[in-house]
Amino acid sequence: MWLPIDPQSDFSIQNLPYGIFSIGSGTKRVGVALGDQIIDLYALSEMDTFSDLGIDSSVFQSDFLNDYIALGKSVHTALRKRLTAIFEDESSPFREVSERFLHPQTAALMHMPIKIGDYTDFYSSEQHAFNVGTMFRDPQNALLPNWKHLPVGYHGRSSSIFVSGTDFKRPLGQTRPKDDEPPVFGPTRSLDFELEVATIIGENTSNGQRVSVAEAEDYVFGFVLFNDWSARDVQKWEYVPLGPFLAKNFFSAISTWVVTTEALAPFRVPAPEQDPAVLPYLKGGKHQNFDVALEVELETSSGQKMLICQSNFKYLYWTVAQQIAHHTINGCNLNVGDLMASGTISGPEPGSYGSMLELTWGGKNPLTLPDGSQRRFFEDGDTVRIRGFAQKDGLRVGFGQVSSTVLPADPF
Amino acid sequence: MWLPIDPQSDFSIQNLPYGIFSIGSGTKRVGVALGDQIIDLYALSEMDTFSDLGIDSSVFQSDFLNDYIALGKSVHTALRKRLTAIFEDESSPFREVSERFLHPQTAALMHMPIKIGDYTDFYSSEQHAFNVGTMFRDPQNALLPNWKHLPVGYHGRSSSIFVSGTDFKRPLGQTRPKDDEPPVFGPTRSLDFELEVATIIGENTSNGQRVSVAEAEDYVFGFVLFNDWSARDVQKWEYVPLGPFLAKNFFSAISTWVVTTEALAPFRVPAPEQDPAVLPYLKGGKHQNFDVALEVELETSSGQKMLICQSNFKYLYWTVAQQIAHHTINGCNLNVGDLMASGTISGPEPGSYGSMLELTWGGKNPLTLPDGSQRRFFEDGDTVRIRGFAQKDGLRVGFGQVSSTVLPADPF
Repeated sequence: MWLPIDPQSDFSIQNLPYGIFSIGSGTKRVGVALGDQIIDLYALSEMDTFSDLGIDSSVFQSDFLNDYIALGKSVHTALRKRLTAIFEDESSPFREVSERFLHPQTAALMHMPIKIGDYTDFYSSEQHAFNVGTMFRDPQNALLPNWKHLPVGYHGRSSSIFVSGTDFKRPLGQTRPKDDEPPVFGPTRSLDFELEVATIIGENTSNGQRVSVAEAEDYVFGFVLFNDWSARDVQKWEYVPLGPFLAKNFFSAISTWVVTTEALAPFRVPAPEQDPAVLPYLKGGKHQNFDVALEVELETSSGQKMLICQSNFKYLYWTVAQQIAHHTINGCNLNVGDLMASGTISGPEPGSYGSMLELTWGGKNPLTLPDGSQRRFFEDGDTVRIRGFAQKDGLRVGFGQVSSTVLPADPF
Repeated sequence: MWLPIDPQSDFSIQNLPYGIFSIGSGTKRVGVALGDQIIDLYALSEMDTFSDLGIDSSVFQSDFLNDYIALGKSVHTALRKRLTAIFEDESSPFREVSERFLHPQTAALMHMPIKIGDYTDFYSSEQHAFNVGTMFRDPQNALLPNWKHLPVGYHGRSSSIFVSGTDFKRPLGQTRPKDDEPPVFGPTRSLDFELEVATIIGENTSNGQRVSVAEAEDYVFGFVLFNDWSARDVQKWEYVPLGPFLAKNFFSAISTWVVTTEALAPFRVPAPEQDPAVLPYLKGGKHQNFDVALEVELETSSGQKMLICQSNFKYLYWTVAQQIAHHTINGCNLNVGDLMASGTISGPEPGSYGSMLELTWGGKNPLTLPDGSQRRFFEDGDTVRIRGFAQKDGLRVGFGQVSSTVLPADPF
């Protein structure tokens, strides 16, 4: 490796995640993060680096990754090998001219990496479903009867998913604070995060086509961190009988870099055993998750910082492959750039719960910041950062972060 | 009018709905239906017909209407006036050369008119919500407490919305026929239609922007007929707590022609009075619906035909303007080409119920076809056609139809 990389960097040579960047007033381009640099794939392609792989430069000068993703897994794999070869060859001719295709990340503006088609949100963490069921319904029957038979999911809003670094205004909405009084209107008073990881679909299917559990990963391009901002008071009032709507669709955020399945492959771990046994269409494949540490930091407007949650992508009862098999069992067609989020990922310990709703147990146990101030839910000026990284045997593959700041509501 | 038009045609000179068509192996183009002809807007534009309106021909040679829609209402209005003037002028120079820009509809292939961004489905017919609540929950409390306070809605799947004439395979899925037994897997046994009208959004909003009821129609381009095919047995098992998912996302269908708000303006009627009073953000504007007759025909594979439902777009408790105001009150951003469906539109009489679930009352009262055969839900080979038209004082503005045929499930 002729490019020096901090061993604690999320962006090791084994990672090579994709994003969309621009420099100054330049065009948007496809980049790959490496250490504290961005590899400019358009510039590299214009140097005739990939023409033998059958990749046209134009896919790298693009507003989104979608056209590159659509080239297919064999192309992605070939490009990954080519990049690895370039940087691992100490006498590579590219080393001399690296300023032509490397930019410091600090000099770049990062953009939304994907033109998202449809966005689906699953509900695949057992601890999360159990916690919410305990609080909202009945501790004796916290999981609904269908939960262990199918990966419960629902459709969300694509238009309001933005890239890390985008801020948003506290949403207004209708809530009913007292069950025997009429609803009221105003800014949400229970603004929450949801710690999630989202899958980006890498290949189209046709309507009527089913994807089995065993082949599901062939349809995955990679993963991003996902914060599904939620207004719990709005949710509680609106969500029956058709599910969450305005409580969720005001704003969500994804990380800037898309980490590929290939990069995460060394971190596969067995997924939880499923009891009762699932139906045959949900069986097959390896039944594995990815061991990716997830953590959430709160920073207040006065600069107070606190790590409020430590969880892991491996805490999914339903694997990504099962989610895809379920999603397509009825013939529902997928498109490149569709996003499938995991649902809030809560681990077994209270400190691993992936939402304020769970961390403060519905606001009953507020979090106390170093300066003594407290949070049941988030206040204006609060910034929430989710980070994710896989680490093992000196190898580190990270996601960077997804960060957003709550701005005050506009007056009505 | 120098072009002869059948007075019973849906496509009068007052209508002028937009669609995407092709002839033979030609490119996809924007067309306007008039009588039994299609006005080829690209061909007309290339004859220098619209250049003073500031419209570039390229928007008319396009796979979708979105670029044309994005030009804005003033352009749409100007083009409508220009077309009216051309066809109402008996001595128009265009009359002599009409074969250059008119095609018989029978010679054209119709395509998906819109590149749909996000798709939202509302639940805005009181009779439908009451019927479903009565069957699924409790006749004494058929409407849930939130129903009269906000237009309940949820997000649906865009990728599986297809144009009229597209057929689909009966979906497979997980159901639980007996509450005390484990779920089973197989083709749905309660395949249903839903009679809906969908709004197509005509202007972008930014995240955080609110659209008031009074200004909501400025954000509407037009309307299509919508059949939200549903698998009731799948729905019943999967829908708690996050709403319908695989029961709805396997296939939906829209009509080929988009009827504009301007064309429907003569058919405005007062919307139902709302009691209890709604919150201020849901008030304002004219509180009107459109009087559009809707009817549903079933045709079996053996050629038996039956009109199974007659309803009306005016039977909405929540108006389209209220749906848009509610959808954006939290800052959720809209895009040109977003689809907002009404939800099933059921009128007060049993013959006006907009789904088999309601028409047969959960399968208890099957429909009997002329040959004595019966339907609780649909069988393979059944074709369902929804038609819609507004008619008054010799003026007719119609939607044409949305038609789809059920194909047998693929073996698993």
